[in-house]
Amino acid sequence: MADGVRLAIVGATGAVGQEMLKVLAERDFNIKELICLADPREAGTKVKYKGEEFTVKGASPDAFREADLALFAVGTDISKKLAPEAVKRNCVVIDNSYAFRLEEDVPLVVPEVNAGDIEKHHGIIANPNCSTIIMVVAINPIHVAAGLTRVVVSTYQAVSGAGKAGIDELKDHSGSYLKGQKMNPEVFQHPIAFNLIPHIDVFMEDGYTREEMKMVWETRKIMHCPELAIAATTVRVPVFRSHSESINLETTKELSVAEVKQILSQAPGVVLQDDPQNNQYPMPLYTSDTDEVYVGRIRKDISTDKGLVLWVAADQIRKGAATNAVQIAKIVVDKNLY
Amino acid sequence: MADGVRLAIVGATGAVGQEMLKVLAERDFNIKELICLADPREAGTKVKYKGEEFTVKGASPDAFREADLALFAVGTDISKKLAPEAVKRNCVVIDNSYAFRLEEDVPLVVPEVNAGDIEKHHGIIANPNCSTIIMVVAINPIHVAAGLTRVVVSTYQAVSGAGKAGIDELKDHSGSYLKGQKMNPEVFQHPIAFNLIPHIDVFMEDGYTREEMKMVWETRKIMHCPELAIAATTVRVPVFRSHSESINLETTKELSVAEVKQILSQAPGVVLQDDPQNNQYPMPLYTSDTDEVYVGRIRKDISTDKGLVLWVAADQIRKGAATNAVQIAKIVVDKNLY
Repeated sequence: MADGVRLAIVGATGAVGQEMLKVLAERDFNIKELICLADPREAGTKVKYKGEEFTVKGASPDAFREADLALFAVGTDISKKLAPEAVKRNCVVIDNSYAFRLEEDVPLVVPEVNAGDIEKHHGIIANPNCSTIIMVVAINPIHVAAGLTRVVVSTYQAVSGAGKAGIDELKDHSGSYLKGQKMNPEVFQHPIAFNLIPHIDVFMEDGYTREEMKMVWETRKIMHCPELAIAATTVRVPVFRSHSESINLETTKELSVAEVKQILSQAPGVVLQDDPQNNQYPMPLYTSDTDEVYVGRIRKDISTDKGLVLWVAADQIRKGAATNAVQIAKIVVDKNLY
Repeated sequence: MADGVRLAIVGATGAVGQEMLKVLAERDFNIKELICLADPREAGTKVKYKGEEFTVKGASPDAFREADLALFAVGTDISKKLAPEAVKRNCVVIDNSYAFRLEEDVPLVVPEVNAGDIEKHHGIIANPNCSTIIMVVAINPIHVAAGLTRVVVSTYQAVSGAGKAGIDELKDHSGSYLKGQKMNPEVFQHPIAFNLIPHIDVFMEDGYTREEMKMVWETRKIMHCPELAIAATTVRVPVFRSHSESINLETTKELSVAEVKQILSQAPGVVLQDDPQNNQYPMPLYTSDTDEVYVGRIRKDISTDKGLVLWVAADQIRKGAATNAVQIAKIVVDKNLY
């Protein structure tokens, strides 16, 4: 372990892959060899890690022969194809896609909530959906203290959830709109500048989007609450980075607002930002480029007994993806689970 | 009545006053004499109605001697001062401010919900809060059919809720941000471009904002449900016009999604826009400049029995303010209640 691991980044040129490199460098991750992989068409591209240039290689099954651990930041199809090949070659995979998240023998992990599940892995550990990660970091401490019975969440999701192309589209469309020009959506279903789109991922038969159901299915699995009642509405908003969430909770045991603040002020990965009289509450413009989940606007849900309302924001590329994966990787390495 | 009314617009130069003039013209309101009033400092300004120029006069108690009916689109303080003066001079007031909304002898009216209350007026009829109007148009038909027991709402509110200054600030800040320049908030508490601010109106002691509590208090009054359980989270979003709302409802009687769609397709003032497979759902960019409340994303709330989830959008300057006031005025005139 003193030697460090041979670490592969799959999708090293993408938004999440780039952020992973940044987080690994910031945390001075103990890397013996860094292997940057991406779509073979991108082979030869240079990426930077700690100021040094690395040449991207095409991701192929045999590329994993030289890696102990691989962080996958690619689409579900590529993960489905390549992750099992990596595992066959004794490389542990931490996968950011949806491919394996709900498979029974794949731990789905947010270290602040269920780090222990990492030990049960069989080669693949899944990194959850970004909105889900952000929510569980905020609500799990309340669950531990008072037993959650129901969660109602409405999200306000940044365009960078759709990668660099989403960021560019918001930038371009905003400029066009301000100049009175037409907006031609390519990444999103409709123009996103100065608009809201209540549609992320595909629609399921029951009228929910898959993004909404990911928040249900994945939260239950991460929190070990297979029956927890959850309803989500996920909405794309014209914000570049950081997702926000309006959350109404119901608990078994009644908690006062002071108790919730006390619990969250000590919760791992949480920054309590709740001073409304001084205009302090989480806002996506200020939570971007950080690793924590910001929680504020904590109050009693006056529409029910034992209810609470929270407002949460966090950088979904960092804590919602890259940082969470790197945190998992650190545990895998520290506990020698590869 | 064939002669038309002598109609005063108080705040004729503001965003809502201007929209009132537009809606009155579109509906060919039967006006014998139009009296445009505003802050005395604005006296002499010209405003247009049906292509004709009108000179704005300073709003003073005696200005109401010549009016049968006055639409107030000014702040709470001015309404408090001037509306009783108008009433003393036999002028019926439809007031858009918060000043009288919760007073027992003042009807608070959304015509699609409680038009009958107009008849009980004693000179002043109050126009509700914009987010509240939009919500009750969408949920009252469900209440009538199935009895609401609880409402949880998270809003996505456009900057024009803060008037023309709010629109200008979003425009300016968006341009500044895209050019990498600093944003200096004046209208809002924080920069609004590419950001979200979970803070509208002032904070109350229990952690709710007054905007959130208006949605509770006013909905109960309009719908004649003094005990209805409601919790709101109100959030400012970088959208120019039209408020959107994510609403979770609980009902006494269970309704199927098909039943809800059937009910809303026939509900007054509602446009059912719910065809997710064809990417059709309400969006603020497309509901602006219309008078209806758009409802879509209708589905069962899977986190509770007898629960429903809706996504609603509507132009808060029109249906949320000007149009609703003009609708009330029409009933006052048609029923000779002045």
